[in-house]
Amino acid sequence: MSGENLRVVGTRVRKVDGVELVTGRAKFTGDMKFPGMAYGYAARASVPAARIKGIDTAAAEAEEGVLLVLKGGDIPGPNIIGILPPFDQPVLATEVIRYAGESFALVVAESPEAAKRGARVVKIDLEPLAPILTIDESLAEGARPIHPQGNVTYAKKLVKGDVEKGFTEADLVVEGTFETSHQEHGYIEPEAVCAVPSSDGRVTVYASCQSPFHLRGHIAANLGVGAASVRVVQAYTGGSFGGKDDVATEIGTLAAVAARRLDRPVMIAHEREESIIGSNLRHASRIAIATAAKKDGTIVARRIRILLDGGAYASESPFVTVKTLVHVAGPYRIPHLHVESTAVYTNKTYSGACRGFGVPQATFASESNIDELARRLGMDPLAIRLKNALKAGDANATGQVYQGSVGLVQTINAIEERRSRLAPLPRNDERWMYGRGVACLLQGISNGAEGVDVVGASVQVSQDGSALVSVGLADMGQGARTVCAQIASEVLGISLPMVTARQVDTDSVHDSGPTVASRTTTVGGQAVKLAATEVRESLVAMAARMFKVDESLVVLQNDFAMLSVDANARIPLRDVATAAYWTGYPLMNLAFSKAPDAVFDHETHQGNVYIAYNYGTHLFDIRVDKHTGRVEVLRHLACHDVGKVINPMGLEGQIEGGSLFGFGLAHMEEVLFRDGRIINANFADYALPSIKDRLPTEAMAVEDPNPTGPYGAKGVGEPPVAGAAAAFANAVADATGIRFRRLPITRQEILLALKAKPGEE
Amino acid sequence: MSGENLRVVGTRVRKVDGVELVTGRAKFTGDMKFPGMAYGYAARASVPAARIKGIDTAAAEAEEGVLLVLKGGDIPGPNIIGILPPFDQPVLATEVIRYAGESFALVVAESPEAAKRGARVVKIDLEPLAPILTIDESLAEGARPIHPQGNVTYAKKLVKGDVEKGFTEADLVVEGTFETSHQEHGYIEPEAVCAVPSSDGRVTVYASCQSPFHLRGHIAANLGVGAASVRVVQAYTGGSFGGKDDVATEIGTLAAVAARRLDRPVMIAHEREESIIGSNLRHASRIAIATAAKKDGTIVARRIRILLDGGAYASESPFVTVKTLVHVAGPYRIPHLHVESTAVYTNKTYSGACRGFGVPQATFASESNIDELARRLGMDPLAIRLKNALKAGDANATGQVYQGSVGLVQTINAIEERRSRLAPLPRNDERWMYGRGVACLLQGISNGAEGVDVVGASVQVSQDGSALVSVGLADMGQGARTVCAQIASEVLGISLPMVTARQVDTDSVHDSGPTVASRTTTVGGQAVKLAATEVRESLVAMAARMFKVDESLVVLQNDFAMLSVDANARIPLRDVATAAYWTGYPLMNLAFSKAPDAVFDHETHQGNVYIAYNYGTHLFDIRVDKHTGRVEVLRHLACHDVGKVINPMGLEGQIEGGSLFGFGLAHMEEVLFRDGRIINANFADYALPSIKDRLPTEAMAVEDPNPTGPYGAKGVGEPPVAGAAAAFANAVADATGIRFRRLPITRQEILLALKAKPGEE
Repeated sequence: MSGENLRVVGTRVRKVDGVELVTGRAKFTGDMKFPGMAYGYAARASVPAARIKGIDTAAAEAEEGVLLVLKGGDIPGPNIIGILPPFDQPVLATEVIRYAGESFALVVAESPEAAKRGARVVKIDLEPLAPILTIDESLAEGARPIHPQGNVTYAKKLVKGDVEKGFTEADLVVEGTFETSHQEHGYIEPEAVCAVPSSDGRVTVYASCQSPFHLRGHIAANLGVGAASVRVVQAYTGGSFGGKDDVATEIGTLAAVAARRLDRPVMIAHEREESIIGSNLRHASRIAIATAAKKDGTIVARRIRILLDGGAYASESPFVTVKTLVHVAGPYRIPHLHVESTAVYTNKTYSGACRGFGVPQATFASESNIDELARRLGMDPLAIRLKNALKAGDANATGQVYQGSVGLVQTINAIEERRSRLAPLPRNDERWMYGRGVACLLQGISNGAEGVDVVGASVQVSQDGSALVSVGLADMGQGARTVCAQIASEVLGISLPMVTARQVDTDSVHDSGPTVASRTTTVGGQAVKLAATEVRESLVAMAARMFKVDESLVVLQNDFAMLSVDANARIPLRDVATAAYWTGYPLMNLAFSKAPDAVFDHETHQGNVYIAYNYGTHLFDIRVDKHTGRVEVLRHLACHDVGKVINPMGLEGQIEGGSLFGFGLAHMEEVLFRDGRIINANFADYALPSIKDRLPTEAMAVEDPNPTGPYGAKGVGEPPVAGAAAAFANAVADATGIRFRRLPITRQEILLALKAKPGEE
Repeated sequence: MSGENLRVVGTRVRKVDGVELVTGRAKFTGDMKFPGMAYGYAARASVPAARIKGIDTAAAEAEEGVLLVLKGGDIPGPNIIGILPPFDQPVLATEVIRYAGESFALVVAESPEAAKRGARVVKIDLEPLAPILTIDESLAEGARPIHPQGNVTYAKKLVKGDVEKGFTEADLVVEGTFETSHQEHGYIEPEAVCAVPSSDGRVTVYASCQSPFHLRGHIAANLGVGAASVRVVQAYTGGSFGGKDDVATEIGTLAAVAARRLDRPVMIAHEREESIIGSNLRHASRIAIATAAKKDGTIVARRIRILLDGGAYASESPFVTVKTLVHVAGPYRIPHLHVESTAVYTNKTYSGACRGFGVPQATFASESNIDELARRLGMDPLAIRLKNALKAGDANATGQVYQGSVGLVQTINAIEERRSRLAPLPRNDERWMYGRGVACLLQGISNGAEGVDVVGASVQVSQDGSALVSVGLADMGQGARTVCAQIASEVLGISLPMVTARQVDTDSVHDSGPTVASRTTTVGGQAVKLAATEVRESLVAMAARMFKVDESLVVLQNDFAMLSVDANARIPLRDVATAAYWTGYPLMNLAFSKAPDAVFDHETHQGNVYIAYNYGTHLFDIRVDKHTGRVEVLRHLACHDVGKVINPMGLEGQIEGGSLFGFGLAHMEEVLFRDGRIINANFADYALPSIKDRLPTEAMAVEDPNPTGPYGAKGVGEPPVAGAAAAFANAVADATGIRFRRLPITRQEILLALKAKPGEE
C-alpha cells in the first residue's frame, strides 16, 4: 500500500465535480432558494475612523419590504467574530468605526433590492477620527491607539546562532528593503451564506466558506446556544484562498441571528464591492533584509525585519506574523539568523489569510535579495541557491532537521536540467528586453505552529459496494473531494465512479479546524486513509471467509475481492459488502488524524514547527516592451517537491493556479486606497489575471516521500504563489536591469522606471 | 455507571421534541416546500386481480400541469421493492394486478390537484381474474397461483420435545381456533416523501419512514446508482408502527426517479385512503390451538397451527411467520411443543409489520386458550399463569435458557398484589355485566432471528461542551431521540439541554437496518452509550491533566469536571472540551454495536433466537351494557419487565399507547373488504381509538436488568399491544360468559352474541 502497485493514487483523474462545475449545473449558495427566504444587506461605514454616536434605523425599518434591522446590540451573544485571540472584531460595529466598509447594521427584507434600499437609509451619527493609514503612522510615537491595547497586533522574533558573529565573518553584505501591497483574493464567487432555521430550534447554515467548524462555533456563541444546535454545511465554493473565513463567520452569524428572529431562511450574498471592502485582504508588507555571505556564495547570516500592515482587526495577523518570521530566510542552510516580524493595526480593511499566508511577501523580499547577492558575486542565480540549499539532515531556520522529504535540490536540478536544454534568450532588440529569473521557496505544510492539526474523516461502504467519503476540510475548488475519493478508492479497491465524496457537514465529522495551510491532502487525506483502512479490514476479513483463505491472500481491486495467487478467483465487492453487513462487520468508520505537535521555543522560534515543507524552484523567461512597459511571459517552469503526486491533473491545476496568483501579486494586482477608502473595489478597476493572462506554466514534480502524509504526499495549494511572484520579479530585474523593490511591478511602474533610468538605451 | 448513581437515566424527562410537536411547530415531510417542487400521485387498480394488457398514459400526459407519467418500465433499476426475499413486489405493476389499490403509474404534476386529475385518466386495460380473498381459497387444491412460486409465502415449524408424548401424559386437552382481522396502523400522519436532486447527481430523500437505510438501498437500486449517491434524511414522523417501510420504499423510489428525470424536487404525500389501501396491514390470522395439561394446571404440551393472511405480496410475512411461531406458546415452561406457522398470499392489500409483529394475534389465541383451561380446571387465571411462568434458568419455546432478566413472575406478582387491594367487582345488574381478564405475554426484543442486529451511533462534543448525538434508528414518535440524549447525557455529564439528538441521516451513521422489533433503546441505546463512552475518555483524560490527578478521580457531572474527593474542585466542561480539542484528543466517535447472533436450528427453531424478551402481565376490569353491547373499561393494569426504565414518562407513554393499540385491535378496528376492495379506507368508517377511548392504564415496571441492553434496558414499544388485546378478550369472556374467538370483539359482535346466547337474561 505504501507506494507500490498504486492503481488510483498517482493517476490522472478528473475532478469529481469537474463536469458539474464547468457545465454550470453546480448550485452555489447564492443559487439556493428556500420558501419564505429573506435577504440581508449590511449598512457600512464610508469613513475609515470614527466614534459612533448613534445609529438610527427608523427610516430603514419604514422602507417597504424591510422585515428587520439588526444592530450590534441585537446579537444575543458577545457580538464578536475573529478566528484568533485577541478577538477584537465585532460582528456589527457599535462604538467605533475602524475601517471604511465596516458593517454597523444588517437590514433584512423580502428581496435583496429592498434590503439594499433599507441599508442605504440606516443613519449613523459619527464623530470622525484622524485615520491611521500606513505602517509608519501606526507605529509613530504618540499615535492614536486603534485598539485599547495599542497598534501592534503581534510581534515575534526568530533567533538562530549568533547573527553578529555571522556578519563579522562574512565577506560581503547585501541589503535591501522590499514592499508589497494589499492583494484581493479575487475568487470568482463572492461570499454567501444562507441560514435556515428548523422547528427543533437548530439552524442550518449553508455557506461558501473555508472553515465550517469556525463558522459553527461563532454562530453558536453569538446566538448564545450550544454548537450542537448549529449545523454548517459547506456549499459549493467558488474559491476562497483564505478569504472566506472571518467574513463567513460575520455574515453567517448575522444570517443565523436574523433567521432565528424571523423564523425564516435568511440569505446574505455579497456583491463584488462588499467582497473587496468588507473581507480581509492580503497583508501589505515592508521587509528589510541584510544578507551576509562569503565570496563563494555561502550565506552565513541574515538580519531581517518584517512589518505587516494588518488593517483594522487582528484576523489572522498573529499567524501571518509567525509564518513570515519562519519562512523569510528561505529554504537555505544559514547558521545565523535574526528575524523580527511585527503586524500593526491601521484604519483599513483588515488583512488576514491569503493563499501563501505571508510566504509570498517574504519570498519576494528574500529571493530578490539573494538575486542581488548572486549578481554582486557574479554567480549564476541557480548555482548560488543550490550552494545554500537545505538538504535532508540540515537544520532549517527554526533549527528543525528533517531526515527526508527535503527535495529542494532535486527541484533546482530539474529546473537546471530543463534550462540546459533551452536555447539562449534572444538578445535585446529595438523593442524587447529579454530576461530570466529564478526563485526558490519553501512553505510549511499544515497548521504547525498555528494550531492543533486534527482532522476527522468518515468512510461508509454500503451493501452494494459503493463508498461514501467525508472529511472535515472543505473543498473550495482545490479538488479536495477528488483527492479524498482517490485515496478511499485506492484503499478499498472500489472504482472511483462508485466513490462519492461529500462536502463538509459539521454534524457528521470531527471538528477538523480550518481548511488552510495546504493541509487538506496531507492531514485530511491521512484521515481518509485511516478511515478507509478500517473498513477495508472488514471487507478483507469477510472475503477471506468467503474464499476460505487467509486474509493475507485477499486483494481488493476494481470492485472485486480476489486472490493474490489466482486473479480468476474473484467475488464482486458488492457481494462481499452485503455478506459483511449481514455477518455484522462494521462498514463505516470515523477516523481521527492528528499530526505531530509543533514543539518550539516561543522566544526564539527554534524547534519543530511544521510536519513537512513543500520546496520549489521557479523560472520565468520574459520580455519587456521598452516603449510600453508591457511584459510577455515566454516561459514559466515550476517544480515542487510534493512528496507524492496523488492526482497529476490536480497538481498541475494547483501549480498553474497558484503561479497565476503569484503573477497577479507580482505584476498586476493592488488594492488602491484614497483617504482610507478602497477606490478600485470592482474587477474593472482592480486588475486581476484573466484567462488571457494564463501563464505557459510547465509544472514539474519531485516526489521525496513525506512520512507524515498519505502515500508520502505533501500539500501544494499555496507554495507556487511565492515561487512565481519572486521569480517574476527577478526576471524583470534581469530584463530591465532595474531592481524593483515593490510589488506589484506593473507595466506602468516598469515604464516609469525605464524612463527614469539614467543614460540607458 | 452500571446502575449506580444514575443522574439522567431513570429520571422523568420530557421528550426532546415534545413541545415542538404539541405546539405544531414541527415540520413534517408534507410541510416541506422546495422551489420548483412537483407532486406525484399514483394511479391505482380498482380490482383485486387482473392481467394488465396495456396502460395508456396519453390522456394523463395531456392534462394541464402534468409533467411526467411514470410506468414500471420507466424505473431504471429492477422495479422491485420489498424488504425481504422473495422480492416479489413491483414499484409499479406492469403485468399483473394483485390487489385493489396497487399502483401502476405515477403522475407528476405542478400541483397535487393536477397530479390527481392526471392519475384519474391514466387508462389501464385489464383482463380480470377471479380474486383469491381468503386463506382457504388461497390454500385450496388447484387454486390459481397468485405468484409463480405458489400461494404459500412462507412456512416454518417449531418442534420441542415430543408433543405426542405430552398429549398422552396430560389429564385434559383444551382446544380452540381463533381468528383476527386485518388492522390498519392508523398513524396520525400518512406516508410522505420528498426527493430533492442535487447538482452533483445525488438525491436527498426526506421521508416519513421507519427504515431510512432500506429506503436508501431500494432507491439506489431502482435508480441504478450506488447507495452512496442517495441520502435519506428521516423527517419528523407522525407514527409508523411498522407501516412506513415497504410503502416508503415504494414512494421514495418513485419520487427519486421522478426527481432525477425532471431535475426538480418531487413530493409524494399520501392521503388517508391511499395510506390504508396502498400500504401494508396487520396480518389477519387463524390459529388453532390444543393445550394439554395436568389437573394441577401444569401445561405439558401444545399443538398449534398458525395461518396468516399476508395479502398480495410477501413484505415481512416471512419474519411474521417466524415471530408468531416462536411466540404463540406464550411465556411458559412447556416441555413439548409442535407449532406450524404459514403465511399465504391473497388478492388483498399486502400485510407486513404492524406493532407487535404477529405477537398480538398469537397472544390473543394463546391466552384465550389458557383462560379456557383455567376455567375448565376452576383455577384462578393469574395462578395458572404463575404456575407455568418462565423463570431464569427455564428453557423457553425455542429451548433458550436465560440466566437473568426473565421478570415475568415479578409482573404477575405485581398485578396480583395490586389486584389483592382492589374491591371486588360489582355484581351484574339489570344493565351491566362485570368482568375481569388477565393475560401474560412475552415479546422478543430486537431483530434476533429476523436479521443481523447492528446499529451505528455517533457522539460529537464541541469545544463549548455541547453534544450532538446521532443514531441509525429512526424516531417515529416513540421517543428514541430522547432516550439517546439521556444516555449520552448520563455518560458525558453534559446536561440534557446541551445535548442535541438528531434524526437519522444515512450519510452520517452506519447502516443500522430497520427501526423495528422494539430494538431502538436496547441496541441503539447501547451504540450511543459506546460512542459516548469513548468521547468521555478524552474528556476525563484532559480533565485529569488539568487537575493534575489520576483519571480515576475525575467525575463528569452537570456540565463540570470535578474531583470525586472534592466537589468544590470543578472545571466547566466547556473549558475541558476546548482544552481537549486543542490538545488533540478526539471528541467525536462513531460506535458500532452488534447484538449477539441468533443461533438456532432452522428446521425446529430450537436455539438462541432473541437477545432478550420483554415479559408482561395485563389486567382489564370492564363492564358490558347488556342492552347495547357497549363496553366500559373500568381499570387497566399493565406491568412489564423492561430491564431498566430509561425514562419513566416515555415508558408510560409506550405502555399506554401500545395498550390502546391492542385495545383497538381487540375491540374496534377491522379493515373491511367487499369483493376484494377495502370499503372503509377512511377514519369515518374505520373505527380507531380516539382520545376519548384512552384507557385508564396504570403502567408498572419491573426492572430485571438485561445484560445486553444499556443500563440493563429492554424495549417496550410493541409488547403492550399483545397484553392488552388478550386481557381485554378474556375480560369480555368473563363479563359475558361468552368466549369470543375472533377479533375485533366489537360492540355489535357482543350484542349479536348476547342475543343469540341461549336461555340467559
